[in-house]
Amino acid sequence: MTPRLPTFADVTAARARIEGVAHRTPVLTSRTLDARVGARVFLKGEHLQRMGAFKFRGAYNTLAAMEPGVRSKGIVAFSSGNHAQAVALASRLFGVRSTIVMPANAPHAKLAATEGYGATVVRYDPAESRREELARRIQQETGASLVPPFDHADVIAGQGTAAAELIEDVGPLDMLLACVGGGGLLSGTAVAAKTMSPACRVIGVEPELGDDITRSFRTKALVTLPKPPATIADGARTLSAGELTFKLVCALVDEMVTVPDTALVEAVRFAMLTMKQVMEPTGVLALAAVLGGAVKPAAGARVGVIVSGGNCDATMLQWILAGGAGAPPNG
Amino acid sequence: MTPRLPTFADVTAARARIEGVAHRTPVLTSRTLDARVGARVFLKGEHLQRMGAFKFRGAYNTLAAMEPGVRSKGIVAFSSGNHAQAVALASRLFGVRSTIVMPANAPHAKLAATEGYGATVVRYDPAESRREELARRIQQETGASLVPPFDHADVIAGQGTAAAELIEDVGPLDMLLACVGGGGLLSGTAVAAKTMSPACRVIGVEPELGDDITRSFRTKALVTLPKPPATIADGARTLSAGELTFKLVCALVDEMVTVPDTALVEAVRFAMLTMKQVMEPTGVLALAAVLGGAVKPAAGARVGVIVSGGNCDATMLQWILAGGAGAPPNG
Repeated sequence: MTPRLPTFADVTAARARIEGVAHRTPVLTSRTLDARVGARVFLKGEHLQRMGAFKFRGAYNTLAAMEPGVRSKGIVAFSSGNHAQAVALASRLFGVRSTIVMPANAPHAKLAATEGYGATVVRYDPAESRREELARRIQQETGASLVPPFDHADVIAGQGTAAAELIEDVGPLDMLLACVGGGGLLSGTAVAAKTMSPACRVIGVEPELGDDITRSFRTKALVTLPKPPATIADGARTLSAGELTFKLVCALVDEMVTVPDTALVEAVRFAMLTMKQVMEPTGVLALAAVLGGAVKPAAGARVGVIVSGGNCDATMLQWILAGGAGAPPNG
Repeated sequence: MTPRLPTFADVTAARARIEGVAHRTPVLTSRTLDARVGARVFLKGEHLQRMGAFKFRGAYNTLAAMEPGVRSKGIVAFSSGNHAQAVALASRLFGVRSTIVMPANAPHAKLAATEGYGATVVRYDPAESRREELARRIQQETGASLVPPFDHADVIAGQGTAAAELIEDVGPLDMLLACVGGGGLLSGTAVAAKTMSPACRVIGVEPELGDDITRSFRTKALVTLPKPPATIADGARTLSAGELTFKLVCALVDEMVTVPDTALVEAVRFAMLTMKQVMEPTGVLALAAVLGGAVKPAAGARVGVIVSGGNCDATMLQWILAGGAGAPPNG
């Protein structure tokens, strides 16, 4: 059976499911940012979402769309970070058990938060075992349902609700940028934007060190990285797009760009020192693209930027505030 | 001539003057914070105000209330930090020259930002000269008007607009906490709250190391510290209340409490890691009082907390993220 591609109707259905549960996060603006970019920039603040990232939208939507009898058998997920917390929190809100397979070297804040939301965390050594296999084994043993991190119609539709809210709040955009790990946020963003603001250019942003989807987009052939890239954007250490996200990115996205980790450091510092906001390195990929010049909007253009998350260890924030020289604390 | 005490009508007039110029800052809430405090806490986010602190309200209101012929001769101010930036920005918006007398050891971010807003900064060594005298000399030489940091009816009325907005946004409060340097914010807060939410207890919060107004409030005699206290709350290094703020605090405030610098470190960390907000040490005095237990609201009480600012050097934020052990970088 071919997996189902999500449509705008799925985003609309997701909005109804998450309403009153997910935060309708604020749109942040900055005179300093606008002056630097030469455009009007609207930041969708998903670092202020429940559990600190957009991932809650997709996870909650997926659980909400399940048959109650299926959902009650429990949930399994594998994730290096925010998807773990998202599934853990969504499961707790539905009163069902969750088991999360996480790499042992995931940021401490994310491991602790996932357990804090009541999930059972199964740690694995990424050099020795594949998380997909571990998750599938747990699934088979317990009857639990797997909520994949990005390659699922309900997950993608849920992530698309952030862009839908942004466009509803600020009106049509000239361009809209989203960060890219496995492509779930970008795919959902594109599905929402292409209906709500058809002239809007949708742009995906990856770290230079993890440019698999940029290359897949340009060659129209799915590129898979040999190993997780050593970027500080820990949410973008995925090896490749999924079947659905590859199709959606190729069909709906206008451009893919990459930014170096140094631009992520600069963007996190800008967010902290100028905007007084704590955003994680993965969370500022799209912001870094406009701040660092990887994307150059026309003068006065209306630019949407999805800030995807704000969960960052204190040690990583210290390293960034110190200027980001040398090896990062969580490389 | 006895200086004029501000009334609620002055706060109302200030609101009209700053409307569309100052940000109506958001009210921030946190499930985690509410759970820790056992109350409903509403944070008024003045770290998101223009120039990064509530001080813009009082400075802009004071300039707006001046006769244009007086204002055009220029503005002088002395300040260790945020008042400097506030007067510099307000002066620029009115197109008038400003000269700011600042201690040479003020946080670098605040010195640079003040110059960035177009002010002429006169640095002085706090061990060798008194800033009031320097400011007065400039005033006499140029004909400029002095905008004092807190002891002025228009400054106090301007600061009171933050509490007025908060109460208008969330409704009556059981208690409302504000940080205290010279008492301008607390005085304005009390003037606003006692009319708009008469049953609300108004509480001022000082650093333990700089408890002059707490002692003045308790003894009803103006206490002056012999030298600036060595607290990391650099905005609360004032030596004493002013004539007006002493009167208003004694007349309208219900309670004064102090918090140790360790509680400020904890509160800044909480704001960054849990709420994803960057607040400066002075800015979290009131938050630290509820987080650390210096003030214990009744279960389910509605508690307002004014977060006064977010301007903090990267080095100070690093030190705080590292746990705040040893000597602070800007002591």
